[in-house]
Amino acid sequence: MPRPIVAIDWGTSSLRGARLDAHGAVLDERASLQGILNVPPGGFEAVFNAQFGDWLSASGALCLISGMAGSRQGWREAPYCACPSGASDIAAALAWVAPGRIAIVPGLSCERDGAPDVMRGEETQIFGALDMLGIDEALFVLPGTHSKWADVRGGRVVRFSTAMTGETYALLRHHSILARTLPSEDGPLNGAEFDAGVQRALRSTSLLQTAFTVRTLALFERSTPEALASYLSGLVIGEELRAQGPLSGRRVHVIGNDTLTQRYQRALARAGVEGVAVGAQATWRGLWNIARSLPD
Amino acid sequence: MPRPIVAIDWGTSSLRGARLDAHGAVLDERASLQGILNVPPGGFEAVFNAQFGDWLSASGALCLISGMAGSRQGWREAPYCACPSGASDIAAALAWVAPGRIAIVPGLSCERDGAPDVMRGEETQIFGALDMLGIDEALFVLPGTHSKWADVRGGRVVRFSTAMTGETYALLRHHSILARTLPSEDGPLNGAEFDAGVQRALRSTSLLQTAFTVRTLALFERSTPEALASYLSGLVIGEELRAQGPLSGRRVHVIGNDTLTQRYQRALARAGVEGVAVGAQATWRGLWNIARSLPD
Repeated sequence: MPRPIVAIDWGTSSLRGARLDAHGAVLDERASLQGILNVPPGGFEAVFNAQFGDWLSASGALCLISGMAGSRQGWREAPYCACPSGASDIAAALAWVAPGRIAIVPGLSCERDGAPDVMRGEETQIFGALDMLGIDEALFVLPGTHSKWADVRGGRVVRFSTAMTGETYALLRHHSILARTLPSEDGPLNGAEFDAGVQRALRSTSLLQTAFTVRTLALFERSTPEALASYLSGLVIGEELRAQGPLSGRRVHVIGNDTLTQRYQRALARAGVEGVAVGAQATWRGLWNIARSLPD
Repeated sequence: MPRPIVAIDWGTSSLRGARLDAHGAVLDERASLQGILNVPPGGFEAVFNAQFGDWLSASGALCLISGMAGSRQGWREAPYCACPSGASDIAAALAWVAPGRIAIVPGLSCERDGAPDVMRGEETQIFGALDMLGIDEALFVLPGTHSKWADVRGGRVVRFSTAMTGETYALLRHHSILARTLPSEDGPLNGAEFDAGVQRALRSTSLLQTAFTVRTLALFERSTPEALASYLSGLVIGEELRAQGPLSGRRVHVIGNDTLTQRYQRALARAGVEGVAVGAQATWRGLWNIARSLPD
């Protein structure tokens, strides 16, 4: 009989957990701001026990932890699994903190044009999404500070790449000369301006050039500060899409929060690509999927 | 008989001037940190007189001022001249502060794919370089915080574009996650690492992706912090070159300080392009060239 699962997502700035029944259904959820940057040196076990100790005492529960808890700065370093890797490869490479009871999920690495690329946590969301959708082949994007694009074939991530999209947007938005032109707070998205940014990015060659149009459009009073914030978001996300090479005719599965997912679906539509939203339960389902892949 | 010229380059953070004889030879130079950001409201005339009043009292001297002094935040707004524009077009559009004696040189604007682009100060360096080199057709790059690429035909700038290269480098270098990987101060350039960055950028599609390799190469200990600073510089400058589209077989004239010029010549060589350095006297020669273009 399958064991109940305690599923943990321990990231840089937050710590979330869910108690799952033997069929993967979520029984209970908890969240705190005790991301790995907020845990004192040597304090991981104490934080973990305080948050989830009662769940673990449930008879025979297995706990799997994904995210930055497996990084060099985390609880226990879980070396990256090289691509191609699927849920069973990950399951075979778990870093056990308490043998048979608590393990950390390794991230993935791949080699692109002579340089490594890495993800930690997104692999679990991908394996969850595959299970939720009942598919074993797809192109995924996981938008964020560092967006990940991952190509899955036969249930394994065969290659992926990172784009520093969210971070670059924040740098340009708040720390570059463009910040002088933009309102201090983002308002609601202006769809037409966002689309204009996406479309300019898609027909351009580099954000180094297109970003400057935020300044010149303001200088010539052809746009407003509020509109330009949406336009810049479109420029940066459009740049990420353009960087993927030809996508036309493909279907892209988008894993992320609702706001980002809607924005990416909108941008993908401008590029002639169908963007399919994957629900937010992907992490719990991914950890459950990895647990099921463990040998009995 | 031609008039002596007082040539002024009044930028954002510095104020420089030169006294030229009727043949354009530099007789004397002065510089201060009183860029337009350091001038109190309404204080431009006083700062100007304190710095250069004695030069102006020379019999019949004509003073031309290029740079941000002509911006909305400057001494007197000098509206942009639309491309194509040459030295005589600029001369016909001077913004006179003291009629017949002191004038501000307008910048240039052009329209690219439905958005404006602008320069202020670089046009003067370009017209100076054309005069120094005795040519009327060339492709120029003026590297900097916001690099300018300008195409000159028949002595007129027919089009140009801006790349936010220097600013983007500074943001990534000091304010992004990559800063954790890099030394706090730049050391001497590591040529091989710089070249590796340029070459990766030239065969890539976006800096959003290539920049992340600075982090992963450090994570896998395939490079050192010092080497990665040079590598990142190569990535960003290489991205600027790639964004220009095919350059192979062209000759590019580089106008800038020695350090930047050498770095761009090195990067251009990686792209199979000859980079010709233009000396630092381009601004004075440009102002002299514009003055000569004035009707008597």
